[in-house]
Amino acid sequence: MTPADLELAHALADAAGNAIRPMFRGQWDQERKADRSPVTEADKAAEAAMRAILEERRPDDGIIGEEYGTRNEGAGRQWVLDPIDGTISFMAGRPIFGTLIALMQDGWPVLGVINQPVAGERWAARIGEGTTFNGKPVKTRACKELSDATIASSGPQYFTGEQGAAFMSLAAQTSQIMVWGGDCYNYGLLAGGHLDVVCEAGLKLYDYAALVPIVEGAGGLMSDWQGNPLDANSDGTVLALGEPARLEEVLEAMG
Amino acid sequence: MTPADLELAHALADAAGNAIRPMFRGQWDQERKADRSPVTEADKAAEAAMRAILEERRPDDGIIGEEYGTRNEGAGRQWVLDPIDGTISFMAGRPIFGTLIALMQDGWPVLGVINQPVAGERWAARIGEGTTFNGKPVKTRACKELSDATIASSGPQYFTGEQGAAFMSLAAQTSQIMVWGGDCYNYGLLAGGHLDVVCEAGLKLYDYAALVPIVEGAGGLMSDWQGNPLDANSDGTVLALGEPARLEEVLEAMG
Repeated sequence: MTPADLELAHALADAAGNAIRPMFRGQWDQERKADRSPVTEADKAAEAAMRAILEERRPDDGIIGEEYGTRNEGAGRQWVLDPIDGTISFMAGRPIFGTLIALMQDGWPVLGVINQPVAGERWAARIGEGTTFNGKPVKTRACKELSDATIASSGPQYFTGEQGAAFMSLAAQTSQIMVWGGDCYNYGLLAGGHLDVVCEAGLKLYDYAALVPIVEGAGGLMSDWQGNPLDANSDGTVLALGEPARLEEVLEAMG
Repeated sequence: MTPADLELAHALADAAGNAIRPMFRGQWDQERKADRSPVTEADKAAEAAMRAILEERRPDDGIIGEEYGTRNEGAGRQWVLDPIDGTISFMAGRPIFGTLIALMQDGWPVLGVINQPVAGERWAARIGEGTTFNGKPVKTRACKELSDATIASSGPQYFTGEQGAAFMSLAAQTSQIMVWGGDCYNYGLLAGGHLDVVCEAGLKLYDYAALVPIVEGAGGLMSDWQGNPLDANSDGTVLALGEPARLEEVLEAMG
């Protein structure tokens, strides 16, 4: 990973934003994927715009994209792209979705960008360098007691019955100020010190790879629901904590 | 109700926005109300700013405010104020909360404003005149089949067990594209043709009074869960439909 990789990630975010912005609250074709999740013309156009740049500027790197699949599967450097994380928010006209861009080296996320193209908000991080929001450093906030924590999750429908019970058991030990909806945007807010815990399940690599450098670069911690670091083989359960010292209590609360 | 009332409502929204904006993602004191819902310094400052204007310019009108209670209870004209609807979104730094301003005449809402002060988005309506978004007319969208509908609600924790079951029964007959979180913002999006159904419970008069003119002025319909129009004595269950023709199916789906 070089500084040029971060510049390139910014260029990808710009290109995706230019593809998405004219379609926000406008007209777009829509279909349902095999798992019934919706995908719009904007998702596809944004991923295509990013892939075109990568194919020209990094022909040897791999790409793992939500909409157009994998290229150069065996490469040590893999760009992981989710053109619109929060497609449902995009479709409903809510400016709290984001384009996710990650670079993985040997299976570990080392660079991440969350870009909200309507509000003009961008979180970015390279491992070892700290996280920025629109170019300025951000930090997670302290959370001395789990009972003070604000907790967020994208929606109850993403949990299995058992996962939902674990989430509710955790939520019961927080402030019970619960933030619903928001997808990747919640992780940006956590990195900026506005939320304490995000707890989700059913996420794919392209949903979480970019979030790891952003949350950890701001002083937080990301793991699966067993407390293991997230990599390409994680099981889709995801925890983000602004205050890493709360991890054991969170895991215990989830049973 | 006169055109001057709408101008006044815009002035109230401006004043509330000026009070809220500097505190967004900043520092503010916070406490919990008797029902455990949070209230911040921003809620209080925004309501105080609106009440100061009303007390000067409409000394004879009544005020029903979320934070500072009722003034001139018996007046035929009542201003209903929710300085921040979606306090939890405000606290988490999400620009999808809103200031709600309604004028009620003899118990019925005749004017409504939803103002999102960070994004600079304002929906406004006077009964009989149509709804505007940032000054331009907006319309709800058609929804020919309930199975095509996108449905929104602020969070499962606001339902009793029985209400949650009715909501899930309705949601199962929609597209199952479910939008969570958002409070008043979802009703603005419905008025603009981006959502089809909002279904909530546990709302207070100041949560829904402003929404009625906005949704209905855009061609939609608002009612309680029995299909009755909303007034000061409603039971807190709220339905908003972009396509009024779907009401019977929606009520039937909810059992």
